[in-house]
Amino acid sequence: MKEKLTIIKVSGKIIEKPEALKLFIRKLSTVGGRKLVIHSGSNLASMLADRMGVRITEIDSRPVVDDNTLNVLAMVYAGRVNKQLVALLQARKMNALGVTGADLNLITSVKRGMGDTDLGHTGEVRSVNAITLSKLIDAGVLPVIAPMSHDGKGGLLFNETDAMAAEVAKALALRYDVTLIYCFEKKGVLLNPKDPDSVVAELKRTRYKALRELEIINDWFVNKLDNAFSAIDHGVKEVIITNAAQLSHLEMGTHIK
Amino acid sequence: MKEKLTIIKVSGKIIEKPEALKLFIRKLSTVGGRKLVIHSGSNLASMLADRMGVRITEIDSRPVVDDNTLNVLAMVYAGRVNKQLVALLQARKMNALGVTGADLNLITSVKRGMGDTDLGHTGEVRSVNAITLSKLIDAGVLPVIAPMSHDGKGGLLFNETDAMAAEVAKALALRYDVTLIYCFEKKGVLLNPKDPDSVVAELKRTRYKALRELEIINDWFVNKLDNAFSAIDHGVKEVIITNAAQLSHLEMGTHIK
Repeated sequence: MKEKLTIIKVSGKIIEKPEALKLFIRKLSTVGGRKLVIHSGSNLASMLADRMGVRITEIDSRPVVDDNTLNVLAMVYAGRVNKQLVALLQARKMNALGVTGADLNLITSVKRGMGDTDLGHTGEVRSVNAITLSKLIDAGVLPVIAPMSHDGKGGLLFNETDAMAAEVAKALALRYDVTLIYCFEKKGVLLNPKDPDSVVAELKRTRYKALRELEIINDWFVNKLDNAFSAIDHGVKEVIITNAAQLSHLEMGTHIK
Repeated sequence: MKEKLTIIKVSGKIIEKPEALKLFIRKLSTVGGRKLVIHSGSNLASMLADRMGVRITEIDSRPVVDDNTLNVLAMVYAGRVNKQLVALLQARKMNALGVTGADLNLITSVKRGMGDTDLGHTGEVRSVNAITLSKLIDAGVLPVIAPMSHDGKGGLLFNETDAMAAEVAKALALRYDVTLIYCFEKKGVLLNPKDPDSVVAELKRTRYKALRELEIINDWFVNKLDNAFSAIDHGVKEVIITNAAQLSHLEMGTHIK
């Protein structure tokens, strides 16, 4: 029987608020067994870019990652956010190791555009080093991954966090019973965006398609859910969309199997 | 017999110049056997602080690390510089892992003032986790350490890089034959600061004291050399002060035994 592994992707909206971050860390410590965290941090990056006078261009809400933007993203994600998380986790005796995909050659990517649009140093995951990751995890380490990888030629690439979390989950599904959690500020996928309690408890592909066609689920959820279903298709046991408070009650939130 | 380990502290003046950095990486790959890198990056941090409007106060050339300064240092050292180094090392097939002392609980520090002066989030190394570091090193990993540690209570601390390199070298000297290299932009300790070739080939404590009394060696070298002699006193086999070009000729530079 495979060991259980819980992969938690935590969103920028949690990371950037001290109180929300504290709650997340406290609740994370209640999740038993082997764990891996992937974090975002986008608003902090925009704030830094503004202060530095770096203008981040976006196309269809994807950043165009030029050299200056890459530096900002590396500083905020791999520096400030990642190391703050690691120090807080260590204080709770979780043996965190903060990494990017460049470290230990964990994740390589290829440059990814959008149609004909060049998105600069934006990466699409090509390979996940499941052997090294599982050695760390089995040694009791909690990997904390910033959404950056490398091209193997000395260049860093920025990855979309939800997609990277799904790729890591798929790669580790061969070795573990993987639950992938998208942890954000809402209780789950909402049927009515104005009602925070209108959570869809379980979402099957057929119902997802119907909700999408009715435009009940908006673009923002679509990205998460496409990644979620792709993970399920590739051996991930379950995807849960939930908030930090509910990490100690994983029966809540939206469940995708 | 103990295995050989070379610990290389690389200065900010090398890190911040692309050509110097490339030379460093190329020369580093010629250093055989087990290795560990500790890097600085101070001028890049000052530049970022300026652009962000963060004013870093210095007392006797030590930064007073308030909350904003700590964020800047974490972003530059643990983010940009550390991950750039890791990606470049990986491209040369050195299996780099970029860390701070908070990661894997590798290095803990206590807050350190200077006399009655509060230096904020400035740390003095209290313990180095030699067991975990040696496991990584023996598995073929090249640890790349940014000069930050943690207090075990969730706080990051900034460390003076030369001192941290000496402490890591001392802790690992129980397990390895350690050579500690201070790699900077000059060929070694210079008898005449105006003559770049006036390198002291070998420096014993008695001669060091004499040169210090004659004020031939300036404050900047004194800090490095005090750390060097302290390392030798605690089991480090040799300290070499040299530049990047000479990493492939370790018989050059200033040798302290």
